Amino acid sequence: MKLSGLPFIAGKRGSDHGESFAARNAANGADMHPLYASSSVEELNTAAMAASQAFETFGKSSGADRAALLRTIAAGVEVASAQLVARATLETALPETRLQGEVGRTCGQLRLFASFIEEGSWQNARIDTALPDRKPNSRPDIRSMLFPVGPVAIFGASNFPLAFSVAGGDTASALAAGNPVIVKAHSAHPGTSELVAAIITEAIAERGMDAGVFSMLYDKGFAIGQALVRHPLIRSVAFTGSKRGGRALMDLAAARECPIPCFTEMSSINPVFVLRGALANDPQSKARGLYGSFTLGAGQFCTKPGLAFLPETDGAAAFREELQLLTSTSDGFTMLTTGIAEAYNQSLAERHTLGVDSTAASSAVSPRTHAVLFQTDIATFRHNTLLQEEIFGPSTLLVNWNDRKELLATAESLEGHLTATILGTAADLANNQDLIAILERKVGRLLFNGYPTGVEVSHAMVHGGPYPATSDSRFTSVGTQAILRFVRPRCYQNFPQTALPEALRDENSLGIWRLVDGVLTRDPIIRR
Amino acid sequence: MKLSGLPFIAGKRGSDHGESFAARNAANGADMHPLYASSSVEELNTAAMAASQAFETFGKSSGADRAALLRTIAAGVEVASAQLVARATLETALPETRLQGEVGRTCGQLRLFASFIEEGSWQNARIDTALPDRKPNSRPDIRSMLFPVGPVAIFGASNFPLAFSVAGGDTASALAAGNPVIVKAHSAHPGTSELVAAIITEAIAERGMDAGVFSMLYDKGFAIGQALVRHPLIRSVAFTGSKRGGRALMDLAAARECPIPCFTEMSSINPVFVLRGALANDPQSKARGLYGSFTLGAGQFCTKPGLAFLPETDGAAAFREELQLLTSTSDGFTMLTTGIAEAYNQSLAERHTLGVDSTAASSAVSPRTHAVLFQTDIATFRHNTLLQEEIFGPSTLLVNWNDRKELLATAESLEGHLTATILGTAADLANNQDLIAILERKVGRLLFNGYPTGVEVSHAMVHGGPYPATSDSRFTSVGTQAILRFVRPRCYQNFPQTALPEALRDENSLGIWRLVDGVLTRDPIIRR
Repeated sequence: MKLSGLPFIAGKRGSDHGESFAARNAANGADMHPLYASSSVEELNTAAMAASQAFETFGKSSGADRAALLRTIAAGVEVASAQLVARATLETALPETRLQGEVGRTCGQLRLFASFIEEGSWQNARIDTALPDRKPNSRPDIRSMLFPVGPVAIFGASNFPLAFSVAGGDTASALAAGNPVIVKAHSAHPGTSELVAAIITEAIAERGMDAGVFSMLYDKGFAIGQALVRHPLIRSVAFTGSKRGGRALMDLAAARECPIPCFTEMSSINPVFVLRGALANDPQSKARGLYGSFTLGAGQFCTKPGLAFLPETDGAAAFREELQLLTSTSDGFTMLTTGIAEAYNQSLAERHTLGVDSTAASSAVSPRTHAVLFQTDIATFRHNTLLQEEIFGPSTLLVNWNDRKELLATAESLEGHLTATILGTAADLANNQDLIAILERKVGRLLFNGYPTGVEVSHAMVHGGPYPATSDSRFTSVGTQAILRFVRPRCYQNFPQTALPEALRDENSLGIWRLVDGVLTRDPIIRR
Repeated sequence: MKLSGLPFIAGKRGSDHGESFAARNAANGADMHPLYASSSVEELNTAAMAASQAFETFGKSSGADRAALLRTIAAGVEVASAQLVARATLETALPETRLQGEVGRTCGQLRLFASFIEEGSWQNARIDTALPDRKPNSRPDIRSMLFPVGPVAIFGASNFPLAFSVAGGDTASALAAGNPVIVKAHSAHPGTSELVAAIITEAIAERGMDAGVFSMLYDKGFAIGQALVRHPLIRSVAFTGSKRGGRALMDLAAARECPIPCFTEMSSINPVFVLRGALANDPQSKARGLYGSFTLGAGQFCTKPGLAFLPETDGAAAFREELQLLTSTSDGFTMLTTGIAEAYNQSLAERHTLGVDSTAASSAVSPRTHAVLFQTDIATFRHNTLLQEEIFGPSTLLVNWNDRKELLATAESLEGHLTATILGTAADLANNQDLIAILERKVGRLLFNGYPTGVEVSHAMVHGGPYPATSDSRFTSVGTQAILRFVRPRCYQNFPQTALPEALRDENSLGIWRLVDGVLTRDPIIRR
């Protein structure tokens, strides 16, 4: 496919009249063709009205039909994977193998949602049958299930140009639920976005669905993204990115005349607690694991471990030395954008003024950046909340501690994060229940003897956590539960069978799990 | 029990030093004893710190233990019901039989939540077992379920002094989930609130639980309520009341340094659509049903039908005449507070200036108010959005229509509401699928041939809806799903069995339903 730089407005291509910007080659900063123009407010309006109109049919489409759409998109992504990976490699400087893996992940999550919604138990059908003879009042027949909320605004993320972008988890879960989607393409990979948007647009046409189900806008700055969140026809927002950007969208969504849910996944430093048992046996291997995790993808993961607590005990020196060695001898890293590289270098410079030690690789030549290991003692860490700020890039902060009480107090002082990791033995876990109890209140995912990067897309995954990790800890943006961000329950009281949605009729023709009078069952309701 | 007027701060009684206010006899406006003093910021801090501390144990208590607490509260409410009903009658002017019904409802919902959480399937346990041999990457073991969010601020509602107040559905669902609760007592029924708070406090002590699980504050104005929502240790908010009040709390919660979920149930006029079939046979009975619903509890229900669309067809005149007759001959109504009565009278006066006809009872003598039936044509209704404003009290607006297209356009122009009601035949439903489709996007509950007042507390009930009906249409404040407002998922990755919560261990000793590798089952996991 040849790139044109034009937005996608309900199956048609928009104009190139807005202020334009170029995609950049992340490795050398060179401008690339074509130019992308910021979409206009008129295009946004057209997209929003088309989405609202499409919701009337798409919102009532069957799970099977939407599953077919998701699978068609996945197949299209696979067919185009060579071009996608080639373009994404240029736009993001991520390694080809990583991007090939992301193709697999993107298609895998589209298909996971397909199988999840094809079987309709996810809709949480609940039926309370009528009790006409109940005293003092009879009980009516009440039946509820989950329905889509309406058009969703989705902001592509910079760090996963496929899996958290145009056809990523947000889009997959919003479409799976039956919501039309309007994507604001991330300006760091507009070409990759254009290729994927074309695949989605074609899949919608192929499935014979309303073209309004999908649109994609470009924005050189923030004006169109903000207008999208403010648009009265938009019913929900999903975003993955910085704390500043996410909070700005939260505030916009909350300030609307009609406020809407806004799920933003933002800032997390994902603390790692190295416990004594982890250092008793081969501490170097744990250091290698941590190094691999904090430098993976040039440290540009939401779940990058940006903080590790190390007890002053046997093995700590070996752990530290290995980490220092790996860091000081590491190759340079090319960041997703020059803006991210500059922000990274500025964060490093600021941290150097905060009285922390550092070990750095010296091999990087601009625009490449280098890995940095910071170190400090726990008292310094506790008394400087700036050290809790996320640094997006290949660095981590090692905090050395001696006093267990101080460790607990420090854990208690942490903000909300996506993850917390424990390295140690089962005995360490048993001996640190107080620490675990604190971390349970702080995060969405607790790991034992693993590393937080690499987020499994599955039914049980929780990629969320208390603010500022996300805007609302009651939701996850990865895994099948991500669909719950975009649905709401609705109930029908005393409706005749023929007027009910199929999933709520007595006969249970879909064979789904339903809560009938408080009992979970797949049986039909037999009237006597 | 003798009333003292003092707040409840984690099991102890607070001070009476703040600015005081008197409970009022709703029937005659007379001040009642004792005086209630606004709680201090220090008391709020003490309560919040105690709640946060109590969360450490209460948040990990078993479903069985919390179920026992809820049942102990229910038993206490029943034992005290005579005094409760007597005091609530004075404070609210609601009829004794209604308040006795509310005792039953309050106890019923406490016990429904008890049975719901005792059986632990509600926690949505999900287990994705490890796939060590998966290519290209192995899959870790991931297990998630729902956990309480932490201390919840609950605002008692004026119109249900028991069922939506101190031990009402919000408190029942927050406690059921494992969250400590701080109630801001409604100043219209502080004595009833005090009696119930004493019962809860005693139940917590009897069950040997941390006293910080419950506190209750008074507030003459808004300062303490606002400080409660702003308090950094509060993790969620629940409110039932006016649009202005609810939006103010939403804005406060969203503007916090660390924003928190705020579920407010606010404004709804609950449109009723009288379709042709309903008028073909005994239209008077439908008019009587509507009259009974809009005047029930002096029209002070969230679900009061404040709007009814009537087609100009056979039977419409009979329907209208019956409604006019019932309204014009109705007795007066005593409102919950003189403030509510004044607001009602002011709303009536404003509506009289909007060019609508009215039929009113003339029998009311102040402080009693009277029922009013407004009437207008659909064009007038559509062109004056003020006619969509909720009037809290025994009035409704009948909108006469002729042109079906205009009816659909008008339905489309409606804001979000809690309910919409269809009166008619099954054939009417089949012939009005376009209307139903519009209403499905507008409300949380659709009724057929019933009236929206009287909200069943059950598993399938949805008492929610798009803004401004509530702050977040993804939740309900009535029924067992109300618990979802106060929980969040958290997952454990590669945790050893002994370090997992009981519900997530292989053996499934609780015998609950779990989603294991995508399959719903109560079986244990057998390792081979």
